[in-house]
Amino acid sequence: MKPLVSIIMGSTSDYPVMEAAAKFLDEYKIPFEINALSAHRTPAEVEKFARSAEERGLKVIIAAAGMAAHLPGVIASMTSLPVIGVPIKASLEGLDALLAIVQMPPGIPVATVGINASLNAGILAAQILAIQDEKLAAGMKKHKESLKKKILTANEELAKIKFTHKVG
Amino acid sequence: MKPLVSIIMGSTSDYPVMEAAAKFLDEYKIPFEINALSAHRTPAEVEKFARSAEERGLKVIIAAAGMAAHLPGVIASMTSLPVIGVPIKASLEGLDALLAIVQMPPGIPVATVGINASLNAGILAAQILAIQDEKLAAGMKKHKESLKKKILTANEELAKIKFTHKVG
Amino acid sequence: MKPLVSIIMGSTSDYPVMEAAAKFLDEYKIPFEINALSAHRTPAEVEKFARSAEERGLKVIIAAAGMAAHLPGVIASMTSLPVIGVPIKASLEGLDALLAIVQMPPGIPVATVGINASLNAGILAAQILAIQDEKLAAGMKKHKESLKKKILTANEELAKIKFTHKVG
Amino acid sequence: MKPLVSIIMGSTSDYPVMEAAAKFLDEYKIPFEINALSAHRTPAEVEKFARSAEERGLKVIIAAAGMAAHLPGVIASMTSLPVIGVPIKASLEGLDALLAIVQMPPGIPVATVGINASLNAGILAAQILAIQDEKLAAGMKKHKESLKKKILTANEELAKIKFTHKVG
Amino acid sequence: MKPLVSIIMGSTSDYPVMEAAAKFLDEYKIPFEINALSAHRTPAEVEKFARSAEERGLKVIIAAAGMAAHLPGVIASMTSLPVIGVPIKASLEGLDALLAIVQMPPGIPVATVGINASLNAGILAAQILAIQDEKLAAGMKKHKESLKKKILTANEELAKIKFTHKVG
Amino acid sequence: MKPLVSIIMGSTSDYPVMEAAAKFLDEYKIPFEINALSAHRTPAEVEKFARSAEERGLKVIIAAAGMAAHLPGVIASMTSLPVIGVPIKASLEGLDALLAIVQMPPGIPVATVGINASLNAGILAAQILAIQDEKLAAGMKKHKESLKKKILTANEELAKIKFTHKVG
Amino acid sequence: MKPLVSIIMGSTSDYPVMEAAAKFLDEYKIPFEINALSAHRTPAEVEKFARSAEERGLKVIIAAAGMAAHLPGVIASMTSLPVIGVPIKASLEGLDALLAIVQMPPGIPVATVGINASLNAGILAAQILAIQDEKLAAGMKKHKESLKKKILTANEELAKIKFTHKVG
Amino acid sequence: MKPLVSIIMGSTSDYPVMEAAAKFLDEYKIPFEINALSAHRTPAEVEKFARSAEERGLKVIIAAAGMAAHLPGVIASMTSLPVIGVPIKASLEGLDALLAIVQMPPGIPVATVGINASLNAGILAAQILAIQDEKLAAGMKKHKESLKKKILTANEELAKIKFTHKVG
Repeated sequence: MKPLVSIIMGSTSDYPVMEAAAKFLDEYKIPFEINALSAHRTPAEVEKFARSAEERGLKVIIAAAGMAAHLPGVIASMTSLPVIGVPIKASLEGLDALLAIVQMPPGIPVATVGINASLNAGILAAQILAIQDEKLAAGMKKHKESLKKKILTANEELAKIKFTHKVG
Repeated sequence: MKPLVSIIMGSTSDYPVMEAAAKFLDEYKIPFEINALSAHRTPAEVEKFARSAEERGLKVIIAAAGMAAHLPGVIASMTSLPVIGVPIKASLEGLDALLAIVQMPPGIPVATVGINASLNAGILAAQILAIQDEKLAAGMKKHKESLKKKILTANEELAKIKFTHKVG
Repeated sequence: MKPLVSIIMGSTSDYPVMEAAAKFLDEYKIPFEINALSAHRTPAEVEKFARSAEERGLKVIIAAAGMAAHLPGVIASMTSLPVIGVPIKASLEGLDALLAIVQMPPGIPVATVGINASLNAGILAAQILAIQDEKLAAGMKKHKESLKKKILTANEELAKIKFTHKVG
Repeated sequence: MKPLVSIIMGSTSDYPVMEAAAKFLDEYKIPFEINALSAHRTPAEVEKFARSAEERGLKVIIAAAGMAAHLPGVIASMTSLPVIGVPIKASLEGLDALLAIVQMPPGIPVATVGINASLNAGILAAQILAIQDEKLAAGMKKHKESLKKKILTANEELAKIKFTHKVG
Repeated sequence: MKPLVSIIMGSTSDYPVMEAAAKFLDEYKIPFEINALSAHRTPAEVEKFARSAEERGLKVIIAAAGMAAHLPGVIASMTSLPVIGVPIKASLEGLDALLAIVQMPPGIPVATVGINASLNAGILAAQILAIQDEKLAAGMKKHKESLKKKILTANEELAKIKFTHKVG
Repeated sequence: MKPLVSIIMGSTSDYPVMEAAAKFLDEYKIPFEINALSAHRTPAEVEKFARSAEERGLKVIIAAAGMAAHLPGVIASMTSLPVIGVPIKASLEGLDALLAIVQMPPGIPVATVGINASLNAGILAAQILAIQDEKLAAGMKKHKESLKKKILTANEELAKIKFTHKVG
Repeated sequence: MKPLVSIIMGSTSDYPVMEAAAKFLDEYKIPFEINALSAHRTPAEVEKFARSAEERGLKVIIAAAGMAAHLPGVIASMTSLPVIGVPIKASLEGLDALLAIVQMPPGIPVATVGINASLNAGILAAQILAIQDEKLAAGMKKHKESLKKKILTANEELAKIKFTHKVG
Repeated sequence: MKPLVSIIMGSTSDYPVMEAAAKFLDEYKIPFEINALSAHRTPAEVEKFARSAEERGLKVIIAAAGMAAHLPGVIASMTSLPVIGVPIKASLEGLDALLAIVQMPPGIPVATVGINASLNAGILAAQILAIQDEKLAAGMKKHKESLKKKILTANEELAKIKFTHKVG
């Protein structure tokens, strides 16, 4: 089994945030890998990873980083695969990481999701794979339905709250 | 009894913030309803809600949302009723939700209150209803008086604090 | 003819921004007045205005201010009528005025619209009046339809743009 | 010829920014369409567009919006196709649009690029299509090479600048 | 004994922050008063306070407020006495209160100190009084000396820290 | 004639902003001086100025600076006279200068006015002097009256604007 | 043994943040000193320190400060030695200190590192010394290698995490 | 002649900003080179440059970049030479570039100067070289003197401004 998606993060301390992406990919049976690589501490390894990504069969890369978050952009500069960037909140409420990832110069996009939004990174990776995989596309539609159910349950809980002038 | 005000929120986790709006409406005997609806997870339900709001007899809608808070604006795009938006603090100190609610394009206003300011949303809804309801208008004036009393009590507490050179 | 809506601004220099609100009210035949009043330069006049607003028959107040924008909040503290606040961009991209208007303390709401969004203030005032005025409510629905037409026209313009691989 | 990519924007005034995306897709022979649709002014049309996108054969959607930019998120809530969001700078330096697009709640990702970064949106769309299209993948690699050439030319220009103590 | 300085705050919840100002005035034997007044909840009382301040013998007013902090500016609009504004941190890290106090329009200054900086407000009040009170001026100089001593003590503590290559 | 107020700025390029302070002092017959001094370029001169300010008869210092604006705080650290800080807008909309002036540590206040608000700095200096100068105090009251007149004139201009449904 | 690097901070409360710089210098056998000095509370001592730094044999100064952080800039204005500035997070997430240190006017640079980034300040000081010290330069290269090892260890930890569809 | 300082920038469009650094180095007879290199467009060239910098005799690197500015940090990750980062203002007033450069993770410092502050980058490079070059150190001291002269000239200009109550 070859991984289609690669989740990269700068250190194990980012794993609790990134776990949601891994769980989502696992639930939808998308083979993936997880690695720790740092744009600043292991630049050579990052380059090796990025340059070989396509021929290793990877289709999408999810890269998470905090502060002056260079990892997603650096990888994007070395591969033509779509790179999803996850800004990690480590300082300044995560605004530094968001800007350092999303404000890429013309020519090198990073598909940025919200601060600490690793679940959304996983879903986006699946959506990208699903455009050529009908079964996965069907799974994505089911997932959308499941989001609805949570709201319906929430509504039931709200219905139990009692006020004199509350209707319904 | 038909509700005049509808309180909408994205999930039950917003209820502790939104309770103050419900309590205020209840205290002033304004019939209201509370529902969970998400612009992103239940778009069809949101549309159904917004398009039927007026004929169901609703007069004002209070919509709360956090992060990229689309719920108030989406509802406002589908009804001519006044929509009050409550930015919920979920990330970036609530600044993302505030901007995503208040900065609506020309043509579709959302009456935005402060971050997590659900009490003010409830009061604003009552003020809007009060322009055609003399009894409620009188109630609103009494409420304004009650705000004053809290300050007078506060003043009494401050008067008890002793310093050598404090006067009064 | 008694005005139902009052547009207040700190100086005539705000008029070019606020004109859109006046034009909208005029188009929908809502009697209104326009005045210059400053929370800081004419506090006594502001108070006289706010305290007499209701008995003069006003139903909604639109107050515009820039920088440390106190006018909407000060008026809201002296009347139970709904007050719509318009942050005027005069410094810091208008962020100072936005925060100084929207972040009101519990008890005194200001229905805030976007930075320089005077058209939306006019529409919101009309929506509030329309909850008890069927003819105006019908007008508001027509206005919503008119917004749609602008987009359709836009779409026709875009259809004329030619690219080799553009479809439609 | 059926479009694979759809470029959506709120008004023709966004077209000068979005042209770079169209040109890129055209250059790489990717069939696309351009439409004006507004989350707030034509919500029904947006819904119709989003719900039929997949069966019409679209693979990627590029949605641009400014201020309280809801269009990308609203579309993303109604389709499982990957949605690329382009924040348009219209106020607050574009920060409001960026946050209103990128900070999506869990479950509904939008692949956000930088403020006004429509070229990057076009490239990202092509990268996503390229994961199943070897010819396009080869094109993307050539594009990366072309970026390099601009820098080499820049370097030649810098080499012409003369200072007494400048080397090379 | 008539107070020379008046400390005003919106509620008793601000007292823990404002205590440092009171303590400083007390230590330097400056007669002062403390009151709770709210620009929004007790506007009439604020006006009465501000308009009578000068004839009651007050020389400086310290006004503290959070969020859309109007109290300092409202008082400054009704008196010619110098008004010192203290932004209280209640939301958005206190940035809303800072901007709502410092960004006053031309004509009505508020002497703003840092977020929650009530000690500095007390010192500034004393410095203003000291320009006509030689004894107090001497006290202010001594206070400046005392700040130095704290640093010297700090230095002694740092001297005790041992490292192999630390000198001194 | 000895100056009572000293206006300090970092370079002549700040003079166009600071002229309003000078004009106000001149109008109210307050003897003043203007100097260029830089916390960073002429630290020794700044120190000499600050340490001799009191014995030279100065009562208030107005210090203007942009960017990492240290001048007001550095002067405040060397004198017990009240120091008014004027943040000059030179980058980041003036936010850097505002924070670098207003956020002084405990013990050393700077009485900060708004960004580029040199008129308010002049008025604040006069208000401080007026607490011991009855004639100047009377002048300050007259100035407050004059602010009112501008608004009345504005109101007359607004009264001339005609709309079908405008009242008054 | 004469110190080559001087670590300056405003109070002992900054020491826990600054300890990492001291430890790094100690580990690489660079003689250093630590002192508490405040731009605002001990301006004369700061001046004496800065003016004598070079002749005392110091080569690099590390200065840490929070809020309206003047210490690094004030020292830089009095010496030609390179000054490294460390913004300490004390309010506004440290943004005030960052801007007050990095945004120096033309002519007086401060080599600024990230918020609370004292380890990086220590490394930068060592890098500066290493350009004339081959042994230290070799040490810096080894340090870079050690950063890599942490990532490799992190990778091993990530490899232990098991998912059904995780590869490797 | 071998260069001691290398100025790197992402494109020739940055040259007008970076010229001040080049001019300063030239004036002080410090051999330097200027090159265009992009972290994102020419990653391999950047790596080659960074890894060979030390053995080519370079002592300091000045790297300028805008938006998601990765160039300084990427170079710093591949060399132990001190890297000076210059944030270029291209969007969001330059705040994105500042945060993307200064907020480096532990282990890899970038000596950051202010937004567009290329002169300060040149001076800082010279100060670093001067710690082992007495002649250059003397030059740096002279430069500090020259800054003072500009202020003195500014003062003479201010002395010519006439007001009735201006002294001196």
